[in-house]
Amino acid sequence: MVRTSKHDQPMTRRDKGPRIRKVPAGDNRQRLVCPDCDYVAYENPKVVVGVVATWEDKLLMCKRAIEPRRGYWTLPAGFMEMGETPEEGATREAWEEARAELEIIDLLAVYSLRHISQLQLFYRARLLSPDVSAGEESEEVGLFTFNGLPATDLAFPSVYWAIDHFQQVRDASAFSPFGNPPGRTGDMHRGR
Amino acid sequence: MVRTSKHDQPMTRRDKGPRIRKVPAGDNRQRLVCPDCDYVAYENPKVVVGVVATWEDKLLMCKRAIEPRRGYWTLPAGFMEMGETPEEGATREAWEEARAELEIIDLLAVYSLRHISQLQLFYRARLLSPDVSAGEESEEVGLFTFNGLPATDLAFPSVYWAIDHFQQVRDASAFSPFGNPPGRTGDMHRGR
Repeated sequence: MVRTSKHDQPMTRRDKGPRIRKVPAGDNRQRLVCPDCDYVAYENPKVVVGVVATWEDKLLMCKRAIEPRRGYWTLPAGFMEMGETPEEGATREAWEEARAELEIIDLLAVYSLRHISQLQLFYRARLLSPDVSAGEESEEVGLFTFNGLPATDLAFPSVYWAIDHFQQVRDASAFSPFGNPPGRTGDMHRGR
Repeated sequence: MVRTSKHDQPMTRRDKGPRIRKVPAGDNRQRLVCPDCDYVAYENPKVVVGVVATWEDKLLMCKRAIEPRRGYWTLPAGFMEMGETPEEGATREAWEEARAELEIIDLLAVYSLRHISQLQLFYRARLLSPDVSAGEESEEVGLFTFNGLPATDLAFPSVYWAIDHFQQVRDASAFSPFGNPPGRTGDMHRGR
């Protein structure tokens, strides 16, 4: 996932720029404000877009070359950028992280990770070729059978969820996208 | 939709705060930077969450009391806030704009308005009571039969889309959420 560290910068301990919290005039919530120039840094949930992409009966995964969770396996995914559709963002991430070319099929899941204010959209996708290779943020990439996944080395809870949900609708053509599994928040530090 | 004007502030013509565009070290895209303190104001697509909510055979709509499109009719919707799920955000907006209490059913549509970098999620919802009234940002609210909608006075293209898509799946229990109608961007100024 691209630019995680930059998005997660600890903005509340800065000594310049937006660094105090107050309710701007006409608003009803505390916002992050620059006391030097009154700039309001609105914070909104960020959208992560990713793919569960297969070639025949094999799943595309990437071993992370960057923190967090360096060395663990993940699905191609990253922050949606300005001016792109979510499908374009997911396609771009698959190229950046795994040099994979693919066709988006449909929306598999919408996960909400409220502890980090992330909305994650995972799409089902079909690889156009099995030729994949590690992009800058991956140590290696691989095509795995579902019986041979690096299951004990997955990077994030939502990677497990997406793979599990994908298998539940393997042959379905129309379904309502999955959400978080019941009771799960995706907060790894709280075991959920 | 809450705080539209604040989010759409013309940040490129400011004389203080983040106001120049450059590629920060280690990045590969131009970002909005403060030349006084080097604060990087990352811009990401924003998520709008809304509801197509019905009571029996009637649809809940709000007449906008704020710009843009003041005086036009819309569905309850607004920017998703930090720390909430999209369903919670949609439920909150229905309360803020129409004092409506409802139960979310499922995800109707994911629209992408790339010209304003908005991702809009509309949920199907069931009103718990027909008692609704105008919140701060609404001039009035109403429950309309689908034959009696204020169809020539709708505020935004995606309001038309969501109502149309809702009617297509009136009796469906499982479907893949709709996206933009083919070829439509939601850009009102370009007639699409």
